[in-house]
Amino acid sequence: MEIYKDYLSTIKSAMNNDPRANKGSYLNFNGSKDELEKGLKNFLLESKENIPLPSLRTFASDLGLTPNYSQGLGSHPDFSHLKHSENIEKHFILSMFIDIKGSTNLFKRYSPETVLVITNTIQRAAIHTCLIFGGYVHRLQGDGLFVYFGGKQIEQRKAVEQALNASSVFTYFVKNDLKELFNEQGVETIFTRIGMDLGENEDVVWAMAGMGEISEITTCSLHTSLASKMQGFSASNGVVVGDNIKKYMNDEFLNAVSKRTGKETDRYIFQIPQENFNYTQYDFSWEPYLKQLDFVVTDLNGNLSMKHSRVSRIPEQIKPIAEKSIPYYHFL
Amino acid sequence: MEIYKDYLSTIKSAMNNDPRANKGSYLNFNGSKDELEKGLKNFLLESKENIPLPSLRTFASDLGLTPNYSQGLGSHPDFSHLKHSENIEKHFILSMFIDIKGSTNLFKRYSPETVLVITNTIQRAAIHTCLIFGGYVHRLQGDGLFVYFGGKQIEQRKAVEQALNASSVFTYFVKNDLKELFNEQGVETIFTRIGMDLGENEDVVWAMAGMGEISEITTCSLHTSLASKMQGFSASNGVVVGDNIKKYMNDEFLNAVSKRTGKETDRYIFQIPQENFNYTQYDFSWEPYLKQLDFVVTDLNGNLSMKHSRVSRIPEQIKPIAEKSIPYYHFL
Repeated sequence: MEIYKDYLSTIKSAMNNDPRANKGSYLNFNGSKDELEKGLKNFLLESKENIPLPSLRTFASDLGLTPNYSQGLGSHPDFSHLKHSENIEKHFILSMFIDIKGSTNLFKRYSPETVLVITNTIQRAAIHTCLIFGGYVHRLQGDGLFVYFGGKQIEQRKAVEQALNASSVFTYFVKNDLKELFNEQGVETIFTRIGMDLGENEDVVWAMAGMGEISEITTCSLHTSLASKMQGFSASNGVVVGDNIKKYMNDEFLNAVSKRTGKETDRYIFQIPQENFNYTQYDFSWEPYLKQLDFVVTDLNGNLSMKHSRVSRIPEQIKPIAEKSIPYYHFL
Repeated sequence: MEIYKDYLSTIKSAMNNDPRANKGSYLNFNGSKDELEKGLKNFLLESKENIPLPSLRTFASDLGLTPNYSQGLGSHPDFSHLKHSENIEKHFILSMFIDIKGSTNLFKRYSPETVLVITNTIQRAAIHTCLIFGGYVHRLQGDGLFVYFGGKQIEQRKAVEQALNASSVFTYFVKNDLKELFNEQGVETIFTRIGMDLGENEDVVWAMAGMGEISEITTCSLHTSLASKMQGFSASNGVVVGDNIKKYMNDEFLNAVSKRTGKETDRYIFQIPQENFNYTQYDFSWEPYLKQLDFVVTDLNGNLSMKHSRVSRIPEQIKPIAEKSIPYYHFL
């Protein structure tokens, strides 16, 4: 997807400049240890401020979204006042765990400096995608993330929509764009696993975890725990969601996980027999979901791209002319 | 173990005060929603400062250890200057992942407020154990932890010793003390899985990960990735360590993981065939290791406890008298 092109080119350039990976493979390869470190420094210079790369930033502004890029880890803005306090709050939240699988294999081919650029760029793409759609990044977990969707000004239905959009768009990137680049470079591909669930107001306790400065504001909830478990049940490049999410979305995109695995024991992620409580986990069909979104268009080859709102602002009557006129499109 | 008794009593008291768990089970149970919240508030009051509970604090001072309780997450003191910088450092580190398994089952019986007290107390016990033995808590991961051992003033051999001690003592607590309490309360027991590995100076890049304030100072290293993977290969209440650790310890306490699982494919956690690089993972026999430590004594029932250095300071010639004289011991 066009929106991730700057992330892909960062990764590609790091791969191409790695002296270990390219030893003997190019006749005129000039990459050296110095080049490697220079590349890494330039990459890290970009990390000082949290701004998406241009291709994704344009997408956000096209959609009219105004993400909060100044957030910090471990203290959701609506609950950060609980830090160093004995108070708690009970408030609904959607917890999402994004895991990146297979990145350890990158060490088979690349220097650790290059692995750092590759994995951190993928993580940045995930961070920015979640922020753009309204998520709050709670924790970095290796290459992965733990993200909350929801808060005091957001209703459950909206939080679910944000989480479904973010997970679909990011998974598309990993499954298609990233895979293509990895294949091109002859590297074992990586994939993602995502799990998410929503706990309602009465089921989520917000409080400080840890002690002193070894602490964060976090949720104690069955549904945060289950989201993490569901991530483990996900298919490669799959998204698994909990029962509570079902009522806030069109359920035609959901199928019990047991249908995929063929194991009836995988239907429920959690049961309390004496209370007759059986909690179902679902595979979320993010591909058909993505295709029906307003801001997504499918081209003739079946590839998806994001509709630029600026393009859609071309008056209908001049579209046939505009489309043929490359400079017109180019300067939009 | 005596050193964890204050942690156990916190958990026990939360279990006994939970209105959901005790509904109908005690004739005169007085627990109410108010009591529950009061208990939780008292618990959280203790979290403002990071100080181990008295039973563990005494142990640290008996051993003459001076842990740094004022650390914060995600910025190891020896590398925190890399935050918001484009600089990197290469320096050895031991990475340890402690996972707590089975805690989701606590939601079957207890209110989320009680689950919070139970899981956070276990996490605190882990945090404090690691700090006492010289670790740096890098990240909270659900109930678990990601901890570094090592730094600029510490050699590899010392870091390995600290990590082995911390993991052995904490696993003993979970496998014995905690299990006993959970059995007593009729709750499904929880267990731990620990993985650790050491990356040498040339193999570990320290740098900022993430962007802006959504960031931390972390390591990019094959051996940090493998430590996390090895945690997944661990037995219940087991500890798996990587090949690099072997040369800094007595290897009589190590057996290839494949010996336990019976699967030859489990011998190596990572291989690069074209470089003939085969990296072995080992089960660490932490129980015999623990028994031979200077500060550990085994009683007649085979239970372990910590030797109080104050007791060992009694002159040899008056020991037989002192041991019979309860007040003497009592006031030591």
